[in-house]
Amino acid sequence: MGENILGRVIPDDVLGNKPLFAGAFARSPQGRKASPPLKAVRPGENKVLASIKEAIKASGLKSGMTISFHHHLRNGDYVLNMVLQACAELGLKDLTVASSSIFPIHAPLVEHIKNGVVTGLDCNYALGPVAEAVTRGLLPRPMIMRTHGGRVRAIESGDLHIDVAFIAAPAADAYGNINGVDGPSACGSLGYAMADAQYADYVVAITDNLMPYPLHPISISQSLVDAVVVVDKIGDPKGIVSGSTRITRDPVGLTIANYAARVIEAAGLVKEGISFQTGAGGASLAVAAYLRKYMEERHVTGAFGMGGITGYFVELLEAGLLRTILDTQCFDLVAVKSLKRNPNHIEIDAGMYANPWNKGAVVNLLDTVILGATEIDTDFNVNVTTSSDGIIMGGSGGHSDTAAGSKLTIIVTTATRTRLPIVRDRVTTVTTPGETVDVVVTERGVCVNPRRQDLIEKLSQRRLPILAIEELKRQVEDLTGKPAPARTSDRVVALVEYRDGSIIDAVYQVE
Amino acid sequence: MGENILGRVIPDDVLGNKPLFAGAFARSPQGRKASPPLKAVRPGENKVLASIKEAIKASGLKSGMTISFHHHLRNGDYVLNMVLQACAELGLKDLTVASSSIFPIHAPLVEHIKNGVVTGLDCNYALGPVAEAVTRGLLPRPMIMRTHGGRVRAIESGDLHIDVAFIAAPAADAYGNINGVDGPSACGSLGYAMADAQYADYVVAITDNLMPYPLHPISISQSLVDAVVVVDKIGDPKGIVSGSTRITRDPVGLTIANYAARVIEAAGLVKEGISFQTGAGGASLAVAAYLRKYMEERHVTGAFGMGGITGYFVELLEAGLLRTILDTQCFDLVAVKSLKRNPNHIEIDAGMYANPWNKGAVVNLLDTVILGATEIDTDFNVNVTTSSDGIIMGGSGGHSDTAAGSKLTIIVTTATRTRLPIVRDRVTTVTTPGETVDVVVTERGVCVNPRRQDLIEKLSQRRLPILAIEELKRQVEDLTGKPAPARTSDRVVALVEYRDGSIIDAVYQVE
Repeated sequence: MGENILGRVIPDDVLGNKPLFAGAFARSPQGRKASPPLKAVRPGENKVLASIKEAIKASGLKSGMTISFHHHLRNGDYVLNMVLQACAELGLKDLTVASSSIFPIHAPLVEHIKNGVVTGLDCNYALGPVAEAVTRGLLPRPMIMRTHGGRVRAIESGDLHIDVAFIAAPAADAYGNINGVDGPSACGSLGYAMADAQYADYVVAITDNLMPYPLHPISISQSLVDAVVVVDKIGDPKGIVSGSTRITRDPVGLTIANYAARVIEAAGLVKEGISFQTGAGGASLAVAAYLRKYMEERHVTGAFGMGGITGYFVELLEAGLLRTILDTQCFDLVAVKSLKRNPNHIEIDAGMYANPWNKGAVVNLLDTVILGATEIDTDFNVNVTTSSDGIIMGGSGGHSDTAAGSKLTIIVTTATRTRLPIVRDRVTTVTTPGETVDVVVTERGVCVNPRRQDLIEKLSQRRLPILAIEELKRQVEDLTGKPAPARTSDRVVALVEYRDGSIIDAVYQVE
Repeated sequence: MGENILGRVIPDDVLGNKPLFAGAFARSPQGRKASPPLKAVRPGENKVLASIKEAIKASGLKSGMTISFHHHLRNGDYVLNMVLQACAELGLKDLTVASSSIFPIHAPLVEHIKNGVVTGLDCNYALGPVAEAVTRGLLPRPMIMRTHGGRVRAIESGDLHIDVAFIAAPAADAYGNINGVDGPSACGSLGYAMADAQYADYVVAITDNLMPYPLHPISISQSLVDAVVVVDKIGDPKGIVSGSTRITRDPVGLTIANYAARVIEAAGLVKEGISFQTGAGGASLAVAAYLRKYMEERHVTGAFGMGGITGYFVELLEAGLLRTILDTQCFDLVAVKSLKRNPNHIEIDAGMYANPWNKGAVVNLLDTVILGATEIDTDFNVNVTTSSDGIIMGGSGGHSDTAAGSKLTIIVTTATRTRLPIVRDRVTTVTTPGETVDVVVTERGVCVNPRRQDLIEKLSQRRLPILAIEELKRQVEDLTGKPAPARTSDRVVALVEYRDGSIIDAVYQVE
């Protein structure tokens, strides 16, 4: 048994030689980057193959190998299912699926796991039947859950070796140039697919929109793509729209958002060149709306906005309140269109966004980030991986990355959810370590991490309702009672990897 | 002594373990790509260093290491000289300078070689005092001369390891994002600097134009850049303009260009989606002008144009005769402006352009390329590396790459130059092997490589003056007499590396 700095215990048999989490910046990289094979494609060679099966055969994919996918088509993605179906029909077994995220649409994966086609999963976010089946013990090996930046780190450092990357390509040409902004399945940025294209041994572009050469803009270059396959449809663009991408109208949500914006103001961050990320949820967007008011009042222009990009960010860009949007992922179709036509809306890769082991990711330059939480403990550790009954229903995505990078990390949440308190003695799963979380804002007030005495001083000069997180916990527990911990077995079904590759927590099987 | 397939003899002591040229596509890559070191830059760290010397110190550069430069500022580049001066002042010795090209402005390198600061050179093109000094034996080790694609191949395969890359950045932000289209020293595409940024152990951006974060468009990402240094001036943009970038008015040049365009037409290549590259010289551009007429007559649109890009290509793009320009290097300021504003004018890296060892370079898709020559032999081998008296005054650049890739490689040249015949029994130096050259066009007519019987048949159906290359040689020698070979010693001063890394020829010291 290994116990990490947060007191999370990881059984040795699943920990293997992975390091235990020892602090947000405790690990430093050593050695050199992973290196994909050299290959020569000569004049006259053709990259367009007749089917996904042909591409699988050409790739040399064998049982036991790792295949990868990106999640920009989100819950509208057809490609993962099509490829797995083809793998199953070809008799492949024991595959590891490294998909940047897994959505409800990927439910057929459950059958592929049952049949032994897939025995390993690796993702930054998982929601739906696959996540639930994994939590209930279906997968023979623990799923690895990473952060968006940590996935690139893992690929680039060689921790995650991808044998064959399958790239859902809304537009491709016959020589493998790819973008995400053209075609009937346009999803916008392809930021999460770029590391796969760069480091996989073999790269297949799957498109429903073969365009004349040279396709442009080019998001992924022909230099990296081995094969192109044309299919009827790679996905349903409606499925890329994230649940709620409009500003909340709920008065509780607006109160929380207002507090959060006032915290940002009080911290002295509303100044020329401010940069921020918010989630795409209604409460997060409401923070952006309040922040906008401060920016307008002070005639302040933001340097950049990030996050899953929605129409609201596009509005800020077009209103001149943001100079740029840095985009790894579009959360609605307004964002997709903006990325195509506005040169100040810039596609960036996930490594530039959040990789902790490169020469400086954009998250390092964030002034503030607004994040959500399923649970928070009194050390400010945050869970966005599991529900309070222990079922996997999320994952870090960029949560831990932006929290570690930004000057001011704010968690916005109601104090209770479905009659359960958000603040716990101990979160079911640690996704993001408390040392990287500065403030928790609920409708009951603002809790500041005691590590940020500077911030406590600044906020106390404003008329903001500040309370200790222990006090918030006590208040809520008076209403709801103390929650029961999730009922889990001692079998690990997922390992939660911090962005630096260390193990921050494990998820246990729910009976 | 090793003798390659073209009969060129390379002394063993300089050949070392390098392979001998054995045919344009004889070598295949093995193994994996080179891999630069992993590094973590954390929030709060600063990349802007006070001076070039500070950056050199921070880089860990030591005597005996390799530093690299790109040549987009061409004969207006100040960066190479500034860096070498700083290296000299810091007492560094025995450096290898890997610059994609060396121009007359780099004359101070001669002193650095004399003083032992620089003992190795590595370039794709060299013109001026340095090239001449090298030919006269100044450098202790043979200079390595590569092709534009071969340089990327060498970097990517690990043959050319760069310890520190210095990137002349017309625009950079404080976190190391770079482009070439903004600022007083804008040079346009940074295509030749990208492999250096990707693979060097340490990358320094040197700029005279520090812009607010995030700079955009981003040609080289912050993820790759270790340090940023601001200087007064990185170069003189006037110096980027290549000698002649206007269509020739010389009647002999126009005759040659007309023949060449008719060859392209006769070969059946004037069709929808045609792609071509021409040099920036007056005769090459005249071919493009004749080709334009054919395209207009037939209402044909080109898929892409390549080459050192000039205003004439921009004119073709804006007239709708080309759908895109793929640009690794701008040859005039009209091209620089077009790259900045026209989304159909696309910056590409040198690897995508021409690397023979990636998953398919653009040169593979060229229908035709128009190239020059200093000398040609009756096997169609071409010299663009040395003058007929043996002095280095050029190098392949993209010559060998495009010749190998394109369906129809045309050499345009006058039959004599300064009273010397172009066609020889034996070229002074082989730059581009005859097997990749299809047609030689002079004012005396069109010589077709006997390997291209298909082309001979097509051309004979047109009223084009066709003659055997031996006949052309005889005709010209009747006028000029047989030229004397260059007077050289048996000491090798440069090795000419074919794009695949094999040695195609050596350049010998001129007394």
